[in-house]
Amino acid sequence: MSSTQAKALVFDVFGTVVDWRGSVIREGEALGRAKGFEVDWARFADKWREQGYHGGMNRVRSGELPWMNADALHRLELDELLPKYGIGGLTEAEIDRFNRAWHRLWPWPDSIPGLIRLKRKFTLAPLSNGSFALLTNMAKETGLPWDCILSAELARKYKPDPATYQMAADLLGVARDEVMLVAAHVNDLRAAQAAGLGTGYVPRPLERGPDGPPVAAPDATFDVVATDFVDLAQKLGA
Amino acid sequence: MSSTQAKALVFDVFGTVVDWRGSVIREGEALGRAKGFEVDWARFADKWREQGYHGGMNRVRSGELPWMNADALHRLELDELLPKYGIGGLTEAEIDRFNRAWHRLWPWPDSIPGLIRLKRKFTLAPLSNGSFALLTNMAKETGLPWDCILSAELARKYKPDPATYQMAADLLGVARDEVMLVAAHVNDLRAAQAAGLGTGYVPRPLERGPDGPPVAAPDATFDVVATDFVDLAQKLGA
Repeated sequence: MSSTQAKALVFDVFGTVVDWRGSVIREGEALGRAKGFEVDWARFADKWREQGYHGGMNRVRSGELPWMNADALHRLELDELLPKYGIGGLTEAEIDRFNRAWHRLWPWPDSIPGLIRLKRKFTLAPLSNGSFALLTNMAKETGLPWDCILSAELARKYKPDPATYQMAADLLGVARDEVMLVAAHVNDLRAAQAAGLGTGYVPRPLERGPDGPPVAAPDATFDVVATDFVDLAQKLGA
Repeated sequence: MSSTQAKALVFDVFGTVVDWRGSVIREGEALGRAKGFEVDWARFADKWREQGYHGGMNRVRSGELPWMNADALHRLELDELLPKYGIGGLTEAEIDRFNRAWHRLWPWPDSIPGLIRLKRKFTLAPLSNGSFALLTNMAKETGLPWDCILSAELARKYKPDPATYQMAADLLGVARDEVMLVAAHVNDLRAAQAAGLGTGYVPRPLERGPDGPPVAAPDATFDVVATDFVDLAQKLGA
């Protein structure tokens, strides 16, 4: 793909657009203060993400679980984690509200300024394994200026299933090579590339916290590599 | 439904949010001037709408046609209408661009001011038989401030099939009685009501032009009746 042929940019969200880890820690700390719990919220967030989201999606992919969206997977795991971390006595409304912490994740500082520039030139949408409602609520809460919401939920398959990337092009009414996936994760980009999409790599070194692993080197075949969304706008001429 | 329990408002689009007839006439007149055709564009627009869209959806509902989205239905009919009206010699790109006149329909004057107010209180989405791409492009072109795009295309059923209204609630992650359909058409509202949604009736007396039929009286069971979207915002406390 020549990056000049892209008409639409679709974005991985967790880690790429928003700081899921810092946001869930912040929500946990607020809950802990309100309820008097002392919890290692960084570890809690990592477990929730790893076992609930990644583990849950693997269980759906393998057929062990029927199709369920990310909210249901987050809740399954939350119901496991709360007693393990000694957190009890929450009402159903409080648990549901905490489960929706994932609907209120904060963007990286460059995300909105970069998206506002990119929106002048491209159609912009998330393309996330997060639920449609989660992505809609997050945009409304934080001001992410999407033109529409695309979620793996619409294909009832999780990325990196090729059906998810194909669905994005089909619903936007453009060819696959007119869509570029922007992501901080090389496996997502490789799958998008295999499905015929363009690729924009924006590494996010702080996704897993200050002591997280180093970011992966870009594949030589990625169409664009940028340090953040403002740099991406610059490199795409927006 | 008490109108105070609505969390999301979903909108019929053609006729309710945008003036499809005036917009298609305008696009036809521009094409006619550019190409030197003399055509009764009002009649052309009415035929395109009646036979291509309504007629096409009926053929999909009956199974005579396989599932196809509104762009494909518009194009099927356009290919019939062009020779009937003596319009020849257009390139494929020109025909495709004219078919996408439906992606560029202008909002009624109150639509955007009303939606901006309503957006402060509710999640807003179209719920139209128009294609997902059509609705996305229309919002980008005209500035309709949706929080997300919902199209019957996502359910692969056309309104008034109950699956379309159910899909809206499911994707927004709310109960059906927390969603209100806003429409200028009583049949759409009755079907939404039967599916468990709230109903907001906004008659649009000019939808079919200055000589169009009178608007239908509201059913007594509709939750809200408003003269336009600003009046709707007022009546819903937004």
